[in-house]
Parts: sequence; C-alpha cells; structure tokens
Amino acid sequence: MKRLTLKFGGTSVGTIEKIKKVANIIKKRHAEGNEIIVVVSAMSGVTDELNKKSNLISKDFDNKELDVLLSSGEQISCSLLSGALLDLGIKARSWLAWQIPIITNNNHTSSQIIKIKTDEILNFISKKGVAVIPGFQGISPEIRVTTLGRGGSDLSAVAIAKFFKTDSCEIYTDVDGVLTTDPSINKKAKKIDKISYEEMLEMSSMGAKVMQPSSVQASMVNDIPIHVRSTFSEKSGTKIVSENEADYKKVVTGIAYSKSNAKVSIVGVVDKPGVAADVFEPMGKNNINIDMVIQNTSLDGKTANITFTIKQENLKKTLNIIEKNKEKLNYNKITHDDKLAKVSIIGAGMIASPGVTYRMFRSLAEEKINILAISTSEIKISVLIREDLTQKAVRTLHKEFELD
Amino acid sequence: MKRLTLKFGGTSVGTIEKIKKVANIIKKRHAEGNEIIVVVSAMSGVTDELNKKSNLISKDFDNKELDVLLSSGEQISCSLLSGALLDLGIKARSWLAWQIPIITNNNHTSSQIIKIKTDEILNFISKKGVAVIPGFQGISPEIRVTTLGRGGSDLSAVAIAKFFKTDSCEIYTDVDGVLTTDPSINKKAKKIDKISYEEMLEMSSMGAKVMQPSSVQASMVNDIPIHVRSTFSEKSGTKIVSENEADYKKVVTGIAYSKSNAKVSIVGVVDKPGVAADVFEPMGKNNINIDMVIQNTSLDGKTANITFTIKQENLKKTLNIIEKNKEKLNYNKITHDDKLAKVSIIGAGMIASPGVTYRMFRSLAEEKINILAISTSEIKISVLIREDLTQKAVRTLHKEFELD
Repeated sequence: MKRLTLKFGGTSVGTIEKIKKVANIIKKRHAEGNEIIVVVSAMSGVTDELNKKSNLISKDFDNKELDVLLSSGEQISCSLLSGALLDLGIKARSWLAWQIPIITNNNHTSSQIIKIKTDEILNFISKKGVAVIPGFQGISPEIRVTTLGRGGSDLSAVAIAKFFKTDSCEIYTDVDGVLTTDPSINKKAKKIDKISYEEMLEMSSMGAKVMQPSSVQASMVNDIPIHVRSTFSEKSGTKIVSENEADYKKVVTGIAYSKSNAKVSIVGVVDKPGVAADVFEPMGKNNINIDMVIQNTSLDGKTANITFTIKQENLKKTLNIIEKNKEKLNYNKITHDDKLAKVSIIGAGMIASPGVTYRMFRSLAEEKINILAISTSEIKISVLIREDLTQKAVRTLHKEFELD
Repeated sequence: MKRLTLKFGGTSVGTIEKIKKVANIIKKRHAEGNEIIVVVSAMSGVTDELNKKSNLISKDFDNKELDVLLSSGEQISCSLLSGALLDLGIKARSWLAWQIPIITNNNHTSSQIIKIKTDEILNFISKKGVAVIPGFQGISPEIRVTTLGRGGSDLSAVAIAKFFKTDSCEIYTDVDGVLTTDPSINKKAKKIDKISYEEMLEMSSMGAKVMQPSSVQASMVNDIPIHVRSTFSEKSGTKIVSENEADYKKVVTGIAYSKSNAKVSIVGVVDKPGVAADVFEPMGKNNINIDMVIQNTSLDGKTANITFTIKQENLKKTLNIIEKNKEKLNYNKITHDDKLAKVSIIGAGMIASPGVTYRMFRSLAEEKINILAISTSEIKISVLIREDLTQKAVRTLHKEFELD
C-alpha cells in the first residue's frame, strides 16, 4: 500500500466525459490498495472565462475579490469529480481549501502555501476514502480566500505531497510526459523517461509547459519525486527526480527555446565599479526582467560594453529608461536588435563532457546560424540567434546530441 | 440613517453590465447614509447550468457535493459585485457563508438557516463598508457546504434582515413589483402597492413568481417588512407588510391561478371516522401533495364521496394507490378528471365583504364557466374549472373586482 497524490490538470477534467474518465483512473489506483489524495484544476477554459469577467468589471479588479472569483473554478471541478467517484461506488468527498485548511500567506493572486492541516483527511483516507482537493486555492491568516497564481494547482499538489508525506506525486496531464523538445517545431521530439529537478527547472523556465518553474522548484526544495503522465494513455510518463537518481546516458537531456527576445548593447560606458548596477537598477524598479548579461572591456581598458537581453515587449520602455539616464551612465551609444530567440541545450551530464560547447557551436555554424550572445550554467548552454532560425537550430541540436 | 438588506436576484446580475448597474444602485443607497448588507443570487442561468453538469455525471448526484457545486454560482456573482463596488470607490467586501458563518441544519440541497454570526459584518458596515453576501448558501454543523433550495436567496435575505435587525429588506428583481394577476394572460394586470404577508403567501403559492412561498412565510413569521422593486426602473414597487398595516380599499387584491390540476372522486366509501385518513395516508407516504379536499355524505347518510385535487403529473400514481387499497377503503367507484385549473381571488378585505362569493360565482356563470369544486379560506376563494377557460376566468374576475 502506498499513499499517493494524484493531480489532474484542466485539460484532464475539461469535459464531463473526461471527468468520468479521471474518476475511473482513480478507481483503478484505489483498487490497487493505495491511499489517495486527489488534487484537481479548474476545467480548462474556466479560469480564463472568470478572468475575462473580472476584466470587464474593472481593468484594476480587486485582488482579494479576484481570488474569491477564481477559486470557484476548482470548487466546481472538485465537486463534480467527487460526485463522479461516489457514483462509481467509491467513498469520496471534497474538501475546499478553507475546510482543510490550506493556509497561505496573504499575497493575494500569487500566495505561497505555509501550512496544511492533515488530521481529518488522513483519518478519511486511512478508512478507504478518496479525498478530493481543489488545487490553486488557499486561505490567508485573515481567513480570506487566496490563490497561488498560474500553474498553482501543481504547487498545491507538491505541497499536499509534502504535508501528507505521500510516496509520490503524479501529475496527470494531456501529454505523455516531458519531451526532448517542442514537438510543434520538431516532430522527432521524444519523451524523456527521467529528468533531474535542475534540468526540468531549466526546461520549464524555457517554455516546456508541462509544469511551471515554481512547482518544479518547490518539488526540488522538498525532494518530492514527481511523475508526469498522461490521463489519456497508459504510457509510463516522465519521472522528475533528484540529481543523484537521474541517469546520464545522454550528455544533453533536452533542447528548449524562447522566442521574442531583444538584445540591447550600451557601448562605451566608463569601466568603474557600480556601473552595471547603475544600468540595471532602474530596470528592476520598472519590473523589466533581464535575462542574459554580457560585459566586456574595450581595448583601452577604460570603457566597457554592456549587452543584455530582455523580452521584445519591453524593448521600447528599456531604451527610454536608458536614454533618461544618459548623463549618469555617460555612455557612447546604444545599439539594439529585436526578433531574437534563445536556444538552450540542457543536461546535467554536460559537466562531465568538455566537448559539448564546441559541438553545439560547430553544428550551428555548419548550418550558417550566427550566434549573437552566449550564456552558460552548469547544466545549460544558451545561445541567442535570429528568431527565424529557431526551428532550424532546434532540429540541428536535437540531432547533434542524439535525441532524434 | 437606516440599516438595509438589499437583495438582487439572478436576472438583476445576469450580465456584467447589469452587475455594474446594481453597483450603482447600491452606491446611491450608500450615499444616502444607509448601512448596507447586500445579498446576491447567482447570475441567471448559472445554477441551471451547474445542475445540468451534475446530471450528466450522475442521475443520482450526491447531495453534499451538489451543494459544493451549486454554491459556486453565488460565489461568482458575489465577488464580481464586490469588485464592481470597489471599482466605484466604495469600501466593500464579500463574505462567503463559511466566513460569516451562516449556520444551517444539514438538510443538504434544502437546508434551513439556524443562526448567522453578525459581529464582524456589523463592525464593517458601521465603518461605512458595504457587505456583500452570497444568497442560497450556508454551512452545516459538520462544516459542509449547504444550500437552501430553489428561491433560497430570498430566504437568505429574510434571515439576514432578521439576524442583523435591518430596518427593511428590499428584494430587487426584474419586474416592477407584485401584480394583480399574471400579465401574460391579462394585459390589464396592475402593480399592487401594498399587500399583506397572508395575501402574498396565497399569491406566491398560486404561482406569482416574485417570491417563493417559503420566503414569504419566513418574513411573515419574523415580521420583516419586504419591499419588492425593480432593478431596472425607479418605480416604487410593492410593500409586503403585516395585516394591520395593509390597506383594504379593494375587496380583492389579486387573481392567481395554477394549471395542470387533476380531480379524483372516490364515490361511496363507508362514512365512518378515520376514512379520510385511510384515503390520504398512503398518498402522503408517496409524496403526493393533496390540494383541495371536499367530502360530502350521500342521501342515505351511510356512505360518503371524497373529492380531492392533485397535480396532473401525479394522477396515474394516485389512481394506482387507491386501487391497491380498494379492499380497505371499500368504495363503490372512482371517477377522475384532468386538465383542470384552479383560479383564486385573494384579498384580506373579503372577510368584511359578504357579497364576494356571490359576485365571483355569478360573474363566472355569466361567462358560462362551470365550477367543478370550491375551496375557501379567510382571505381566498378558489374554484376549479376547465383548464382551457383559465384566461377567460382570470380576465372576468380581474374586471369584476375592479382591478383593471
């Protein structure tokens, strides 16, 4: 007998028929003798629809009331799924966040879970009951409804797995697992059987949509093994595990990319301590996320060039901010470039394989793909290229690192 | 300064535009210096939609989970309305039933309110806050979500008015108030300015859909003055008051009707004590509602005929039950008649006007409308007629009693 957290995403409960299918999956896992806690997202489209309603009321809809509104989506799917389980003759009941309770901080619309009370539900599941819990929602210390932000149901599942000490946390979704790259731009994408938290974090940060980075991070911090699998097939899915449990048969685990990047270079700033801070401080204050940063010194050693990348949508705002600070920054000129993409190879195995960087650059060069900037971490190498070359680059690297 | 309960029905908050309109009505009433508690129904259609979903899951969907499901409708309208008020610069917040709490018994899907905690909301409204409360929902002593059944938001409003000791309870709806009869069968229907609880109870029992009978009864028992008025016009509406405050310029206040009735006569039962109980006991056990009952003795004084009316849909079941009990009841024969309507004149003033009965019967006779049964109370006379004569009868009586 194991204790399991089973989380079903919005597409898995998107219709009444699918909810019935999910109920049958749970029935099967229950019949295997497991103690089961289910975490469920809102039916797909419901949260967007509610958000749309709030936007029509006010462009600046109150955060606390928005949480009351949005949490209704999970309340609906959670009660429907409980009803479907009861209809199959399974002892089941729903617990809304306030009934458990799931206590969060009061950071409305993007709260963090602080504590989950477990006794009542532990008692219920120990007596062969299936507990059904809405993802995404909590209550604040002020007893107001809170929500965890986009992808919050995964965060709920990880927290449930942690506080209830479940043996595993299974994320049921509409794909077979985590793929080596985006199948919409490379049909040769393959399912990854095992991936480390760190790799998954890089993959999800770069746009692999199976799990939000924050949930991957939460599972990494709490060492909760995650199993991503399909609601609609019997395939084995992807296991997300700690680095020492991952296997490194391949140097590179996956290829990720993000489009719509822009690059800005500030040429000829005086090279003295604090200059980078002077450049980036006003951007932080304006909520502009800086991604890659490269600083190099000019030949005379007196001035430096600072290059960084941002999202394309922030380009205009960024240029304005820099121009406003021209006097303080005392630079020579600004150049910029938009419609760029960042393509990354990710793999915990690359630390032990010195040739990876070289192989990456050479294979791109052979396809005449020019590299505009490079950034590396222990498990990732990212290059900035022209956006229209994204597909070509991904396919080339996918083949080069034997992922096809 | 007054303390007001303002209740808005589903059609009043049926769209985003209407929710904004409602927010403006509340703003105006708030600016007049009143303390305000708002009770709000689900947006029209939402509860039906949720019910439909539960039916698709199971024809026998669990009651407790149904309450969790259905209560989400009021949660949505309640948060949207609070957001709209905040957007107008008014201090406002929503309280869900569990946050107050509104304690009901655990009769799921048709619970009764037992107690409402008032301190937190009283404190909030005393500091110029508008409290917004979802109608229809409560929590049981077992801390499960409950709902009050059809028309439950009116019950919530009456209970709020009672426990918060508000000066009045205003029911905002999509009509101008309570009308003298159904405008869809008589265009000459007029708004009633003042009506007693008892009259309103008869009107609503007979199909006037402005308020459910149970809410009228609750307001009568607790002596809560109700003011039914339109969300979409400035008209003065209808006041529902205790009998000594009603005015009786007219003998008859309104004409109500209900269609789809059936009449059953059991002819020649032995006239001895307990026979009526023997007839009706098995029907009560089978949840068949008996409406009018007439018993008369035959000429020889030894047998009696028992006639009663029921809803047409229960006719077959009723006949079966009587035939099953033929031996015990020892009757001569059964006759029955369906496609009948009950038309009633209602007015607390008729006690003091002995000619009313005569005028009613004569005016129907002049229109060649045959009366199949009669039942009277202190404030009501009902006649059973052929269903296809309903409109003619209502129009005739509306004119006869000077309501045109």
